[in-house]
Amino acid sequence: MPTTTAAYRGLLHAYKAYLPLTDRTPLLTLHEGNTPLIHAPRLSDALGVTLHLKFEGLNPTGSFKDRGMVMAVAKAVEDGATSLICASTGNTSAAAAAYATRAGLRCVVLVPDGNIALGKLAQAVAYGAEIIAVRGNFDDALTLVRDIAATEPIALVNSVNPYRLEGQKTAAFEVVDQLGRAPDILALPVGNAGNISAYHKGFREYHTHGKISRLPRLWGVQAAGAAPLALGLSHVAQPETIATAIRIGNPASAHLAREAVRDTNGLFEAVTDDEILHAYRLLAREGVFCEPASATPVAGLLKLKAQGNLDAGQHVVAVLTGNGLKDPGTALKANAVEPLVVDATLSAVLSVIRG
Amino acid sequence: MPTTTAAYRGLLHAYKAYLPLTDRTPLLTLHEGNTPLIHAPRLSDALGVTLHLKFEGLNPTGSFKDRGMVMAVAKAVEDGATSLICASTGNTSAAAAAYATRAGLRCVVLVPDGNIALGKLAQAVAYGAEIIAVRGNFDDALTLVRDIAATEPIALVNSVNPYRLEGQKTAAFEVVDQLGRAPDILALPVGNAGNISAYHKGFREYHTHGKISRLPRLWGVQAAGAAPLALGLSHVAQPETIATAIRIGNPASAHLAREAVRDTNGLFEAVTDDEILHAYRLLAREGVFCEPASATPVAGLLKLKAQGNLDAGQHVVAVLTGNGLKDPGTALKANAVEPLVVDATLSAVLSVIRG
Repeated sequence: MPTTTAAYRGLLHAYKAYLPLTDRTPLLTLHEGNTPLIHAPRLSDALGVTLHLKFEGLNPTGSFKDRGMVMAVAKAVEDGATSLICASTGNTSAAAAAYATRAGLRCVVLVPDGNIALGKLAQAVAYGAEIIAVRGNFDDALTLVRDIAATEPIALVNSVNPYRLEGQKTAAFEVVDQLGRAPDILALPVGNAGNISAYHKGFREYHTHGKISRLPRLWGVQAAGAAPLALGLSHVAQPETIATAIRIGNPASAHLAREAVRDTNGLFEAVTDDEILHAYRLLAREGVFCEPASATPVAGLLKLKAQGNLDAGQHVVAVLTGNGLKDPGTALKANAVEPLVVDATLSAVLSVIRG
Repeated sequence: MPTTTAAYRGLLHAYKAYLPLTDRTPLLTLHEGNTPLIHAPRLSDALGVTLHLKFEGLNPTGSFKDRGMVMAVAKAVEDGATSLICASTGNTSAAAAAYATRAGLRCVVLVPDGNIALGKLAQAVAYGAEIIAVRGNFDDALTLVRDIAATEPIALVNSVNPYRLEGQKTAAFEVVDQLGRAPDILALPVGNAGNISAYHKGFREYHTHGKISRLPRLWGVQAAGAAPLALGLSHVAQPETIATAIRIGNPASAHLAREAVRDTNGLFEAVTDDEILHAYRLLAREGVFCEPASATPVAGLLKLKAQGNLDAGQHVVAVLTGNGLKDPGTALKANAVEPLVVDATLSAVLSVIRG
């Protein structure tokens, strides 16, 4: 369990007994983890349960990816790497770039050429990563970084890096430590399926160590346009959803995710973009502004509740994986606000306020 | 001092002994505060001091404003308010809207019409605030909200609200609790001058209670184009700087800020936009991505060091007031990256990587 705030020194220190550290692993940190578990009173009422939100958007680079990346980069340093590489247009590149520069390593990010929204890469650019756009799609970029890491002295930090899962599992520890017990259900977004696998691993380890007496049911929620696990498909050829962070048709950790659900008597569910945006607005009205993808577990809970498949009185945790500031455009579109323009007089403003 | 992460319940709970709470004050929280104090090894070397960064960008809405706002909104609820109002185009409106919706209050935000960057208001919009644009400038909007709050049953939460300072002073407590002592110097951005006044109040109170034996010197750093305090002027008519969060020509708390500097043997300094952007890049290379305004204290420290006015070996804390995700555009402009585009072949990518 993390010690007092006064002494908080990051995940590798807080959970060192559970992580693959050696005497030579640097205790790298940007103070990742230690994210809030926020009670959601209105959604709790609507769902008939006690709902807490694990707000991973308050990690250093704004997403849960920092947990896995701090572990992966620390091990890369231990192994003598001087460069990192990844293929990513989003949260992974931000986390990789931040921990690379913190550790004094070079960071190369491969992205598909064409419709690169450079804004999505603003963080990686700020942290000093080198961006290379390849004339191909995302899969081409991923194949290239795997090939390069196989032959060059460059550490690959995409999700195939096994240390990512090790770091990410600490979120399960924190949920238990903060709640003082295991939740009955933990619901989370599923894209590449690494995170649900990491939570499963974390809860399993806490169970083995006697920290919890049973496992939470893992409810993995996918966007309907990118839902191979929920739909029982091997993959989806053209994934599409507003929740870009989980717009993945062929999850790398699909088999681990299926095992996580089977082992915990959990489930997969799919929700539409409209359902995601509805949950996204409800979360913001609780005072928590997350990425659209982060709203999928809450959309899933609302759907399962409506179907009569959410028993009352349970302790439920929804994992909000990223910060809403990563995607302000969706906030504006989802709320469709046109500011009223009035004269700068007391009477004009008051007439608007009084309605 | 905040208790363990497991039990962290927000600022009002953590520092209740130091805050103006009554039995009727709700312990409102979005888990604000408890922000990291991050060691900056490279900047420490460059400055010849031990530098820590108090990263306020990891507050719930991404800036230090949450500290003051949770206190102001809790008191508004206690006083029976059902609506809040403020004039703001930035961090204040985000914090006001978040805590208003959390507390179940209506939130009205007045902004000047004309060049409204709606993106700046994405958070307030997401949290459900009502935006009214008035045909006038920012001062007109501020005058209107003051007039409205004077006659209507609507709580004003701009910085004239005295509870804002009470909440903000908790940042000084956290710095001491986290560092285990008072720093020798605390450097921070100065715009409207509320924050430096709040730190002064906080350190004074910890001194009175015997938590620290002497006050840190307060170094307030302004952007050169908006630096009335550093330049000894009553105000600046047309403030201009890339650091929009401190682009203020007539600081509301100027007298308190002057008193804070006088009382602590501190100083005011001004830095150019180029110096701010240089510091902003150096901070990102430490792995901390902040708002441009947040880089001003580090720019000031570098300037004072170059002038021979920063004694070696001291403990220095720089306050980074906001998250870099609030302003991704500046990250892209400040780093001027044009991604290299190459064919999706191993040889093409390797030739770039090998240089």
